[in-house]
Amino acid sequence: MTSMILPWDKITADLSNLEIIIDPIQLTKLSLDYYHFSPILYEKLKDKRGNLVVRPTNEDEIIQIAQTCLNYKIPLTVRGAGTGNYGQCIPLEGGIILDTTKMSQIPWIEPGLACVEPGVKMAAFDKKAREIGWELRMAPSTYRIATIGGFIGGGSMGMGSITYGQLRDRGNVQALRIVTLEEEPCIIELRGDEVQKVNHAYGTNGIITQLELPLAPAYPWAEIIVVFDEFMTAARFGQALGDSDGMVKKLITVHAAPICPYLTGLNDYLPLGKHCALLMVSEYDLDAFHELVSEYQGEITYLKTAQEASKGTSLLEFTWNHTTLHARSVDPTLTYLQTFYFTLEKVEHFYHYFGDEVMIHLEFIKVNGKTIPAGLQLIKFTTEERLNEIIKYHEEQGAGIANPHTYILEDGGRKIIDFAQLNFKKQVDPYGLMNPGKMAAWGKE
Amino acid sequence: MTSMILPWDKITADLSNLEIIIDPIQLTKLSLDYYHFSPILYEKLKDKRGNLVVRPTNEDEIIQIAQTCLNYKIPLTVRGAGTGNYGQCIPLEGGIILDTTKMSQIPWIEPGLACVEPGVKMAAFDKKAREIGWELRMAPSTYRIATIGGFIGGGSMGMGSITYGQLRDRGNVQALRIVTLEEEPCIIELRGDEVQKVNHAYGTNGIITQLELPLAPAYPWAEIIVVFDEFMTAARFGQALGDSDGMVKKLITVHAAPICPYLTGLNDYLPLGKHCALLMVSEYDLDAFHELVSEYQGEITYLKTAQEASKGTSLLEFTWNHTTLHARSVDPTLTYLQTFYFTLEKVEHFYHYFGDEVMIHLEFIKVNGKTIPAGLQLIKFTTEERLNEIIKYHEEQGAGIANPHTYILEDGGRKIIDFAQLNFKKQVDPYGLMNPGKMAAWGKE
Repeated sequence: MTSMILPWDKITADLSNLEIIIDPIQLTKLSLDYYHFSPILYEKLKDKRGNLVVRPTNEDEIIQIAQTCLNYKIPLTVRGAGTGNYGQCIPLEGGIILDTTKMSQIPWIEPGLACVEPGVKMAAFDKKAREIGWELRMAPSTYRIATIGGFIGGGSMGMGSITYGQLRDRGNVQALRIVTLEEEPCIIELRGDEVQKVNHAYGTNGIITQLELPLAPAYPWAEIIVVFDEFMTAARFGQALGDSDGMVKKLITVHAAPICPYLTGLNDYLPLGKHCALLMVSEYDLDAFHELVSEYQGEITYLKTAQEASKGTSLLEFTWNHTTLHARSVDPTLTYLQTFYFTLEKVEHFYHYFGDEVMIHLEFIKVNGKTIPAGLQLIKFTTEERLNEIIKYHEEQGAGIANPHTYILEDGGRKIIDFAQLNFKKQVDPYGLMNPGKMAAWGKE
Repeated sequence: MTSMILPWDKITADLSNLEIIIDPIQLTKLSLDYYHFSPILYEKLKDKRGNLVVRPTNEDEIIQIAQTCLNYKIPLTVRGAGTGNYGQCIPLEGGIILDTTKMSQIPWIEPGLACVEPGVKMAAFDKKAREIGWELRMAPSTYRIATIGGFIGGGSMGMGSITYGQLRDRGNVQALRIVTLEEEPCIIELRGDEVQKVNHAYGTNGIITQLELPLAPAYPWAEIIVVFDEFMTAARFGQALGDSDGMVKKLITVHAAPICPYLTGLNDYLPLGKHCALLMVSEYDLDAFHELVSEYQGEITYLKTAQEASKGTSLLEFTWNHTTLHARSVDPTLTYLQTFYFTLEKVEHFYHYFGDEVMIHLEFIKVNGKTIPAGLQLIKFTTEERLNEIIKYHEEQGAGIANPHTYILEDGGRKIIDFAQLNFKKQVDPYGLMNPGKMAAWGKE
């Protein structure tokens, strides 16, 4: 199927009561994401465009869009703010792009739980939730602009994951409401383990219209930079902080020295040649935190209270994939990987093995109850062959790579067909209209 | 030194402005704790008595007591509610018993932190702290009557330890204020790592007069019993819940089937022959919790919301060492051990190896960032030799035993001399008056 032969005039007329965008510049912008972090994806995706963007404001409009897609068999790609990095929301076969950013109601926020529409921006949500002492359990470094629905559809973890693990962990998404692309579009609510059918499915099996998310107590998060002479000391410090059950924390990032100069906004706090940890720790635990820093002979070069931190740029924006963003803005030939190192021994091995070709950036997270070092290491890109060699070597040594150089759902993280998601797609998207080309298992049986 | 030859009339006169207790029945009660859980300690400690009890209400009175002890070189033993289990506060050499229960002011409670006097009862504190949404990070099963100072002086962990680890973990005690028994009693404030000099030192090196403790967000804790056909399924369920980063929890206890009949208050919910888990889980995470229970084919026989639970006896009172209390009230020949199993493999080995002689009771806690099974297994006591054999076998197999059959500080938990505590005692208690006989390293150099 190609969307080029569709009767776009008729389709546009059918949707004329909605906000529609067909301006080519806007269409280009709303067809793409941060796929250009990968030189491999860049070549594959740079020319992909939707035919029109539609911005619904409520569920009824979404049903209308779904019905229109079904009537004409139009490919449909759902996007939030487009802050993903692997083309999750880039339409491979054109068609309609459903931009959720106007679906930004917050039906309710209660202690511990909230109900949101998918287009709610995460930082804006937290501002409201903090009025009653709560906040999101986790969020990506694009927190200020990213939408909650986009994070659930295409993300997996972020700040907060050092306490609450990953989005896929039981409890981190409580319920989802979707509109299906069945012959007659209908509404389905998923709760408990059922949410995993749609969680991190790149919008291939249902249009999320509402989410129930658990909240975390909103601590006053101090933002801190600690620098170290030795990389492995910084890494061990990160692990120790992650393992310190008596200290409440939200972010533990460690950058090897070669990464620091790319973080130009932090130059004053990152002495040349030093390795750094960028941290968010509860103000209530700062006494204990200072003791841990002393134990590891770290030097604190930056410490803002939560109130001070709220006035400027958060350290969050120098962590997770914002690190890659800053590095690439200095040197566009850089790219990155996503790695579960699992142990510091592996981190040390790769640190010495690759030298400056692979600059190690660690994010400590909880996986099944344990603090592990994950990584978004920066890569001096030469060729696709070499990149694959680097990936292969990591995997041979027992690290897990969530490949950010593929837009195929199954090839990124878990490397296996998720039959629950595939079977759910058969039910709710029998014509395979939703984000076609992303779920490899679809149509392969 | 024996306190018998001291001029008690003069001493009593010197303290006559304070509340003093010399009634023999009261003196007996206030000289002892729950040491009788151990038949070995029972024989050694049953006759130990202080000469008088004094109940100060403020720090000035404590300084006066300290000065009096120094003037006459009187042994001084500090106690809270006396809910310890190894004679921590039993005076081995008589002398003055300083009962802190009237030191029950709460100077301040703020979000995340509170300042308390040592005699504040833990449940009473939480009632106040919950008014602003907070509570203690951890507490023992004697929570309703135990004092905070007693817990810091003689305790180590309890409900809440599945999230926050042990009292000894950095951050879990923020600051301590003590009165010393130096020639001139003075006041010392300890903060950060310095608190470890006094934390869990059985009151051998300073009289705690004030504490700063970090608080935890007060979730609505649902109280739940789940029963299982197989013991190891119950144990694996406990481990899995402990490792579930997306679910907030406060208590994970697992009792092997032979223990259940001793919990007479719960007979209706503990079918004969079944193994059980007694749990406190955030109400906000109950959907996810139900999914976990299904995965392990558990059956929920009891589920109270936080509000319902607040009206009756908390499940807490069937866990930790309250389990031993209930069991011994049915069969006084029973005793117990305290064990760090570290892994479920070890639990399984001991479960089969000892059979019903050692009835396994697990408490899941965090140790250095990892969920581990600890145990307070019930023992069918025969002889001291057999008990020591059981302990030895556990240690040979790699389990750690915190021996509850000794009143010696070093022989209980860590098995090593704590030189920080010893050296601090030299400074603040040069005459060795504080709880003499408990710190083995004292006077041995």
